[in-house]
Amino acid sequence: MAKKMSSSITILLVIFALQCAMTLASDPDPVQDYCIPNPKFGALRTPLHNIFPCKNASEATTDDFIFSGMKVAGNFTDMGIATISVNPTVFPGINTLGMSFIRADLKVGGINPPHFHPRATEISHVVEGSVYSGFVDSANRVFARVIEQGEVMVFPRGLVHFQMNVGKNPATIFGSFNSQNPGSQKIPSAIFGSRINIELLEKAFGLSPKQIGTMRRKFDPKWVS
Amino acid sequence: MAKKMSSSITILLVIFALQCAMTLASDPDPVQDYCIPNPKFGALRTPLHNIFPCKNASEATTDDFIFSGMKVAGNFTDMGIATISVNPTVFPGINTLGMSFIRADLKVGGINPPHFHPRATEISHVVEGSVYSGFVDSANRVFARVIEQGEVMVFPRGLVHFQMNVGKNPATIFGSFNSQNPGSQKIPSAIFGSRINIELLEKAFGLSPKQIGTMRRKFDPKWVS
Amino acid sequence: MAKKMSSSITILLVIFALQCAMTLASDPDPVQDYCIPNPKFGALRTPLHNIFPCKNASEATTDDFIFSGMKVAGNFTDMGIATISVNPTVFPGINTLGMSFIRADLKVGGINPPHFHPRATEISHVVEGSVYSGFVDSANRVFARVIEQGEVMVFPRGLVHFQMNVGKNPATIFGSFNSQNPGSQKIPSAIFGSRINIELLEKAFGLSPKQIGTMRRKFDPKWVS
Amino acid sequence: MAKKMSSSITILLVIFALQCAMTLASDPDPVQDYCIPNPKFGALRTPLHNIFPCKNASEATTDDFIFSGMKVAGNFTDMGIATISVNPTVFPGINTLGMSFIRADLKVGGINPPHFHPRATEISHVVEGSVYSGFVDSANRVFARVIEQGEVMVFPRGLVHFQMNVGKNPATIFGSFNSQNPGSQKIPSAIFGSRINIELLEKAFGLSPKQIGTMRRKFDPKWVS
Amino acid sequence: MAKKMSSSITILLVIFALQCAMTLASDPDPVQDYCIPNPKFGALRTPLHNIFPCKNASEATTDDFIFSGMKVAGNFTDMGIATISVNPTVFPGINTLGMSFIRADLKVGGINPPHFHPRATEISHVVEGSVYSGFVDSANRVFARVIEQGEVMVFPRGLVHFQMNVGKNPATIFGSFNSQNPGSQKIPSAIFGSRINIELLEKAFGLSPKQIGTMRRKFDPKWVS
Amino acid sequence: MAKKMSSSITILLVIFALQCAMTLASDPDPVQDYCIPNPKFGALRTPLHNIFPCKNASEATTDDFIFSGMKVAGNFTDMGIATISVNPTVFPGINTLGMSFIRADLKVGGINPPHFHPRATEISHVVEGSVYSGFVDSANRVFARVIEQGEVMVFPRGLVHFQMNVGKNPATIFGSFNSQNPGSQKIPSAIFGSRINIELLEKAFGLSPKQIGTMRRKFDPKWVS
Repeated sequence: MAKKMSSSITILLVIFALQCAMTLASDPDPVQDYCIPNPKFGALRTPLHNIFPCKNASEATTDDFIFSGMKVAGNFTDMGIATISVNPTVFPGINTLGMSFIRADLKVGGINPPHFHPRATEISHVVEGSVYSGFVDSANRVFARVIEQGEVMVFPRGLVHFQMNVGKNPATIFGSFNSQNPGSQKIPSAIFGSRINIELLEKAFGLSPKQIGTMRRKFDPKWVS
Repeated sequence: MAKKMSSSITILLVIFALQCAMTLASDPDPVQDYCIPNPKFGALRTPLHNIFPCKNASEATTDDFIFSGMKVAGNFTDMGIATISVNPTVFPGINTLGMSFIRADLKVGGINPPHFHPRATEISHVVEGSVYSGFVDSANRVFARVIEQGEVMVFPRGLVHFQMNVGKNPATIFGSFNSQNPGSQKIPSAIFGSRINIELLEKAFGLSPKQIGTMRRKFDPKWVS
Repeated sequence: MAKKMSSSITILLVIFALQCAMTLASDPDPVQDYCIPNPKFGALRTPLHNIFPCKNASEATTDDFIFSGMKVAGNFTDMGIATISVNPTVFPGINTLGMSFIRADLKVGGINPPHFHPRATEISHVVEGSVYSGFVDSANRVFARVIEQGEVMVFPRGLVHFQMNVGKNPATIFGSFNSQNPGSQKIPSAIFGSRINIELLEKAFGLSPKQIGTMRRKFDPKWVS
Repeated sequence: MAKKMSSSITILLVIFALQCAMTLASDPDPVQDYCIPNPKFGALRTPLHNIFPCKNASEATTDDFIFSGMKVAGNFTDMGIATISVNPTVFPGINTLGMSFIRADLKVGGINPPHFHPRATEISHVVEGSVYSGFVDSANRVFARVIEQGEVMVFPRGLVHFQMNVGKNPATIFGSFNSQNPGSQKIPSAIFGSRINIELLEKAFGLSPKQIGTMRRKFDPKWVS
Repeated sequence: MAKKMSSSITILLVIFALQCAMTLASDPDPVQDYCIPNPKFGALRTPLHNIFPCKNASEATTDDFIFSGMKVAGNFTDMGIATISVNPTVFPGINTLGMSFIRADLKVGGINPPHFHPRATEISHVVEGSVYSGFVDSANRVFARVIEQGEVMVFPRGLVHFQMNVGKNPATIFGSFNSQNPGSQKIPSAIFGSRINIELLEKAFGLSPKQIGTMRRKFDPKWVS
Repeated sequence: MAKKMSSSITILLVIFALQCAMTLASDPDPVQDYCIPNPKFGALRTPLHNIFPCKNASEATTDDFIFSGMKVAGNFTDMGIATISVNPTVFPGINTLGMSFIRADLKVGGINPPHFHPRATEISHVVEGSVYSGFVDSANRVFARVIEQGEVMVFPRGLVHFQMNVGKNPATIFGSFNSQNPGSQKIPSAIFGSRINIELLEKAFGLSPKQIGTMRRKFDPKWVS
């Protein structure tokens, strides 16, 4: 019985720790040198990614501040893109420091569909390849062109942007953010892969119910009209 | 000749003032009680709205801190929505104070299409009517239902949200923001009314070139495919 | 005995959670979409209001983001004012998002006495009625006049402001803030209803000990001189 | 004529510069080492104090970063207090760095009447003397006692606080703030020395018109009832 | 056995609380009046100083907001300096309020070696004595001179600064910071008292291995070359 | 004469604009989509780098948001390092967006001497080569090891860090910052290449006057002892 209680306490602790970790990790000025999440307590699942409570600072190691997990590309989706998102869960050293980053690889012709990050500006560095890149401003103007290896494009905070590999070889991009959790909304799946009222979508996009249905099935595999 | 020079100086001044006003108006903590933009120097056009340099504080008047321009609904679009956006240009008193607001009226069946504000959370107060309201989170979950007169919904910063008048009478909504310039990107026009590369859009949405063309003509009247 | 321990552990947890919730709820930029306080763990009392630890994000519901508790006026004080303050305790969805709001109703002749919010600017929207409204700036200038239904006044962060229903009908006001906990100090009760040294008050206001005593009895019912 | 134009241009410049200086001086993180206001362009008056445009950084001198103007007490008011407020106007080096400070001297029995700073916390260091010091929190609790030479009290941001020299000798206090312009509202003069509607004040404080009138004459010498 | 479990739970709690306290204490705007750390739960050690979880706000006392521990100088090092750092561990009332302070005493000829605070600007008030004081800007310019009793110098955020008592009597300095944990890196010990690769140091400073070795032994007593 | 006046007015304008641009460029949340500095008005020199007033937003071009100037390494110093710092002067699109970046190339054996950035955390991405990298925390602990191509290290805000190419080939590093002007103090030149009082340096480092003199001549070529 004591054991059972112990379990339920652990669950409580996990929940509290989750809240602390989630809400604490404040992007404004840190008030200590660093804060390494503690893997001992197990992964805590949130809708977006896993979070850990912090280590006692004296246990911090050099490896906590180095990320080695993106030497090669991740797994490709059917849009020809593979991304490795680096946040405090996989790279504990950046916790509370107000930055994170991503590696994106694009097959020839692969795309990064229109999306935006609600909480960060992105600096996008083309490490390899030729990538058509751009963003849309609040006045619906598009700023886009092909950028080559060694060039950098900035996507201002919260604005829709997109990329497409227009070269003859695979492309690799290194993106950095000024938030430890920039967030992301991919337009196709946020709009058509979610359960927004169908009548509203018809009116908003001028599409027929059938067209909306097709897109829903494409972006929300579990959808049954 | 001196006169001509005077004109060009004025132009210079206007441009400099514009930059000051634009970039200064910082949403973080103000360092003075208030800062009223000065209409004497004429409107300065920016892509989004007009901006004015500030008044000498001793010239501030009570009316600078009161907005009377939204007692009645604005002009309706073909989506059945009329909005009056209140920012420092039309309501000088809020300049530098980190807040702004909007009045939105919806005809029966009218919609506020999916959109987001890159720089603010929104508190949406239904003053009159029955409005289906909702938002999508980063995990593509939709939080939506009909809200009635007197109810309030919050749309977290940077997340896509939408509204539709599902009642039998016109609806009026008062939305407030925690930024003096929250910004706005309407998904249909940002995606299909801008000039994003057509091949990228086809791949992103799984639509045919013809379908994309139709939407482009709908949201970008000047588009000729 | 194990059970007793369990209780004391729960208390500890509640206390820790309280601290987390209290201090976390940071008005600066959020680092996640939202954070819903979790009512399961019971109310935690603080001097100002109750606070709850947060929910696992996957348990968030649409109702967490909608507030329905201010369709009618609250209870009136003897100054003829009824207020319903909306903060994360009663409206979980706004937690960590940097905004909150209030409904205030004024009887004919009712007043909202001079007060200020230490941590927020207020946008005050007159939904019904005629309300004399104003604030005092750091140079002791008053900006005040009667505002009518549909008009909006801004009270800059931290400055003393006040309202009085000067119309022939009840008035209703919707105020929004750019902090989830703006705080409030009502001048009459903060000064005369608290236990500030009486000699200091006499010197500060030029009032007699008897006059101070009268005001103390009025604003601090438990005061016995 | 060219000369006349030149004058009017100077006026324009002064006004623009004023706005820049006013609104720029942002308490959040600085983006350069320092920014010294430039006295060459003359004092620019604002309601609260004078402001100067900035120096070219290469002209900054050591003296810009040192303040020597508070070695002795300032002028005493009839409440027995003398204050020297140090802000970017008199101490250029602190401009944009998010801090300022004050020297306050109290005669025996002198008081610093109840007041608050809308934009800063204060660290109050008693350099000499015995000072009854305190503040009121949002729940109207008073935290106050006599503090002696070498002791320090903190007044949390935006809360009403007060001081009285209860020793047998003059007292000297050094207060520092975490804003370059903390602002200040003295309760007696903000409430009774401003022109708030008299009926509202009567209701708020339970004072008679005659009592209000007496206080108005005391705190607003120009008032004629 | 239940008892043993209880202990391990306490340990867990302490660790979680530590994380909360550490990461919460955010220098940006507070969202409550104050937050007093709770000594009941015992000191929690971090690399820099001890931290406590918070008190229930109704238990806050006047003494929580007053610091009496620096009426006399601290212990002197062999550089002739004695410092008393005041942070939320020793002065609970400043927790979350974005300020802290320090008392430094310098013997005749004593120095405060070149150092910087990664997270704060410092206002340095010479309470007694004659102190050569200065800082270096990003362009390597030095701003320095002797400052006398009653004078104040500002050290901009993050820039290297230093002090030396050049008078004939002991000196006392009161420094205040706009962060509750400004942090500090003393150049001699951070560079030569840490274990940075010796070859790198030789190249960086143009010193011989022997010279580096001498300095290492001086600043890192445990070093054995 | 009018022409002469015109010149002096231009100078005034340039100075005012400089102040605006300098002080405005606030790292906290932007209040507009972007703000492109305007090269038309000529470079404005500050101690650290050149700054330009902003463009009318409608004149912004795609190239404003793309940086192409770091495809190849910069010029090498005698420490074997070549850096290209990217800030709003050379990459206008990042102005006001709170980020900047750097390319650093290291010859075999080349070093990046101990330094720190007063206003930013750095994400350091090794694009090519083997680089010994590390930082020192506030407790003088060193976190350092060799990192290889594709690995990333984080240097927490304001802490001293360093790098050395320990591989057999040149190394290339891409560093990104969460400030548009992170600032930089290189320890050797800030301490020994500036004009800090020699007696203070002797005491601080335990070096002889002769040793200090040698280092001064090395790091401050204009120094004559």
